[in-house]
Amino acid sequence: MDDREHIGRHGTALVISGPSGAGKTTVCKQLLARQPDLHFSVSCTTRAPRPGETEGADYYFLTEKEFDRRAAGDEFLEFASVHGNMYGTLRSEVERYVFSGQNVLLDIDVQGARQMRSRIIGSMLGYCTEYVFVGPPSFAEMERRLRGRGTDDENVIAKRLRNARAELGAWHEYDYLIINARVEAAVNLIQAILTASACAARRVMNSPWNDLEVPS
Amino acid sequence: MDDREHIGRHGTALVISGPSGAGKTTVCKQLLARQPDLHFSVSCTTRAPRPGETEGADYYFLTEKEFDRRAAGDEFLEFASVHGNMYGTLRSEVERYVFSGQNVLLDIDVQGARQMRSRIIGSMLGYCTEYVFVGPPSFAEMERRLRGRGTDDENVIAKRLRNARAELGAWHEYDYLIINARVEAAVNLIQAILTASACAARRVMNSPWNDLEVPS
Repeated sequence: MDDREHIGRHGTALVISGPSGAGKTTVCKQLLARQPDLHFSVSCTTRAPRPGETEGADYYFLTEKEFDRRAAGDEFLEFASVHGNMYGTLRSEVERYVFSGQNVLLDIDVQGARQMRSRIIGSMLGYCTEYVFVGPPSFAEMERRLRGRGTDDENVIAKRLRNARAELGAWHEYDYLIINARVEAAVNLIQAILTASACAARRVMNSPWNDLEVPS
Repeated sequence: MDDREHIGRHGTALVISGPSGAGKTTVCKQLLARQPDLHFSVSCTTRAPRPGETEGADYYFLTEKEFDRRAAGDEFLEFASVHGNMYGTLRSEVERYVFSGQNVLLDIDVQGARQMRSRIIGSMLGYCTEYVFVGPPSFAEMERRLRGRGTDDENVIAKRLRNARAELGAWHEYDYLIINARVEAAVNLIQAILTASACAARRVMNSPWNDLEVPS
């Protein structure tokens, strides 16, 4: 942006949530490919690295003791236990981008977004965060997409549909609702949200006109 | 937008303010030229029509009595007296666009925006309104632009500068701050704001997934 250096603005923390089958992962991938200036927030986990996974790129790999210490110190914006392993997003990971004027993408679920919102609401990081919900064009279409993957048995699909149904009900907790009928169109809209977010007046760090005198 | 018909969203009332010399008028003209779906809010006035001006296109021409009657009935979002004539924006003029899913541009000054905000804050129209402040890259540049017009004497310019200085201080009352260094770039940003605004979750009129059952 023309005026970025001139007036000084914080970056945006872009939170994207959406149920399985809404196409959120594809949308995030295309968004990152199109916007090289958008960083991806790397999560912490206590699970063991899989072959090929790199510390600091795929995850920050923590011991359970280290994870607990950081959780107790309120260092996470959100965290949860999944299949017996802990996963979480460090506040420092997000702030180092946002407070240096860079944008960062957080792919987190509805529960994680709720935790994050309650921790940062009213803070400067809160003012720099946009919550985007990506939903399917219809529930039937979401079911079709989930079944179309063809790799899971009926019980797994039934469980995913139940979870998706519950997650869909949270759309109104978000700033923006994107209906992902076509991925290209959805990514265009999220790019517009990022651009608009950068213009938010609450994001300006100091008076834009330093040569402005007090009105006489 | 792909999902406009599907889920039903209200339009946006786009309020643009900015001091004389910030280039607001040029920005508004280019914006309207680029977005044929963006309507321009026609104001009411008690001054006499000038040659070539058309009722309903340039202004709604009202008698003083009619203007007063509408003001007393709280029909204006904002109104003011300028050089002895009354000018105002009818709520009905804005609502007829916004509540039928269309976008409308309001070119109003800082005082008018304040009146409008206080009248609609917390209402559905309030949730559908974006307040954009267009400012110059610097105070010195604004002065240069004002003097560059070359048609006014020093007293007129001095008065404009005084007013502009006072108006600039209101930037933080707005949702968005656009620094108009290049008109093209400024218009791009406002278009992104319009696009993002259309995705706002608070703008959705009914649950997007009517086939959504209550989670079990």
